[in-house]
Amino acid sequence: MSNFSSDKEKLFVIKIGGNVIDNSAKLDSFLKDFSVINSKKILVHGGGKIATAIGEKLGIASKYIDGRRITDNKTIDLVTMVYGGLVNKQIVAKLQSINCNAIGITGADANLLPAEKRPVKEIDYGWVGDIFRENINPENWKLFLENGLIPVVAPLTHDGTGHILNTNADTIASVIAVVLSSFYQTNLVFCFEKNGVLENVNNEDSLISKLTFNDYLSLKNSDKLFAGILPKIDNAFDAINKGVNEVIIGNSSQLASLINGTGGTKFFFNEQ
Amino acid sequence: MSNFSSDKEKLFVIKIGGNVIDNSAKLDSFLKDFSVINSKKILVHGGGKIATAIGEKLGIASKYIDGRRITDNKTIDLVTMVYGGLVNKQIVAKLQSINCNAIGITGADANLLPAEKRPVKEIDYGWVGDIFRENINPENWKLFLENGLIPVVAPLTHDGTGHILNTNADTIASVIAVVLSSFYQTNLVFCFEKNGVLENVNNEDSLISKLTFNDYLSLKNSDKLFAGILPKIDNAFDAINKGVNEVIIGNSSQLASLINGTGGTKFFFNEQ
Repeated sequence: MSNFSSDKEKLFVIKIGGNVIDNSAKLDSFLKDFSVINSKKILVHGGGKIATAIGEKLGIASKYIDGRRITDNKTIDLVTMVYGGLVNKQIVAKLQSINCNAIGITGADANLLPAEKRPVKEIDYGWVGDIFRENINPENWKLFLENGLIPVVAPLTHDGTGHILNTNADTIASVIAVVLSSFYQTNLVFCFEKNGVLENVNNEDSLISKLTFNDYLSLKNSDKLFAGILPKIDNAFDAINKGVNEVIIGNSSQLASLINGTGGTKFFFNEQ
Repeated sequence: MSNFSSDKEKLFVIKIGGNVIDNSAKLDSFLKDFSVINSKKILVHGGGKIATAIGEKLGIASKYIDGRRITDNKTIDLVTMVYGGLVNKQIVAKLQSINCNAIGITGADANLLPAEKRPVKEIDYGWVGDIFRENINPENWKLFLENGLIPVVAPLTHDGTGHILNTNADTIASVIAVVLSSFYQTNLVFCFEKNGVLENVNNEDSLISKLTFNDYLSLKNSDKLFAGILPKIDNAFDAINKGVNEVIIGNSSQLASLINGTGGTKFFFNEQ
């Protein structure tokens, strides 16, 4: 918990998923909202369905074992191309056109996100990387941020022995926010297709705008929350526990309100 | 011409083409040689046949008009994926494994290489970018170099209005070397499949190891040189004219000797 966080400069770490990336109009609108955020900022993007579509044309079928996606040799090349090349550079070029000095990176670049290939146990996930925040050197992140560069991060890491690894974008966003919370007042924003944590998953107006850990425990015990949101909430409180100032979950079409505090669900460890 | 160049720190700008990229063993060997260069350095890579191979699988045919490649909508997405993603990040991950803190970039990243879409005259080249050195801000190049980062540059630029552009890797290497010659003693190294400029194109032992501009004019007048090498030589002297300290052309399998001055052809404007 960051008792002295208000002395530090603000940093937004914002994650967008495939639902934005796959829709050109949504993406343009999101990037416009992102471009006007008047603080230090980092954008982490997921993959989107385009990798699956291109993979199908190339004869690379998506493989799953027990519902978990497997990253084999062909799939890691596919996502390196699509996430690290096509998606990442298109976002960078668009941001450059609206006064955002974006720099597109993967975790291999400047060794920003060293990772470890997930050990083979019951399942061999293939080229999947797990990141540990104690292995991340914050210096190059700070170098970019302090020099006006805006990192745009593809969900790829590397193992230090020459291999690119596939890593979950939510995890990357959380870890970056935690690591940089030693230097900045970090605000972690997860954008998805819902307005935030809802009391009734079918009613977007039933938004819970502020959630403390105690509130969460009460709601969870009363079985009010949609089960699918629970892992996201657990992640949010985990990030706050490890030094992130604030976590916000909300709709990618309402980024401005997520940033200015009028939209989405904000998580606080303690009552504010 | 850089009369005071010896006061500046040395910088190698090294270009490799498709013949290295398409051969995994050659690439590994080249990168090992690159990794031990004990000076500031930048690597510029071309594309290779892999883009054509992936394009064919995706149903994207290479288009040519009068022998000139055309970059249409599908082709720019293809090369953004393959050059900016697959090739670039694989090189970065390999360099990271051998103690080179590489950072893979395109010209869109950090606005490193702003370009202009080639105007449509007799031929519409499509999404091809021309770069002009006066438009390039050297600050972020210097930021990376002064902080121990080694740029690995894909042959892509951007137009500032949201579009990635395809730009020749030789041209990118030359322009970077010229722009940075104000700050470093730049040495521009073009690696290709021959040992350098040869008096007899069929005899790799007929290497001309040093070539001044006057020597070149004499050789050219005597019709001794292979016609295909003339544009490369003209480019080399053009770079020297604009401030590059030395240009070297030679075999990608002999990088160490190109760097230490015992291999390839070195171009000097004046007698040394």
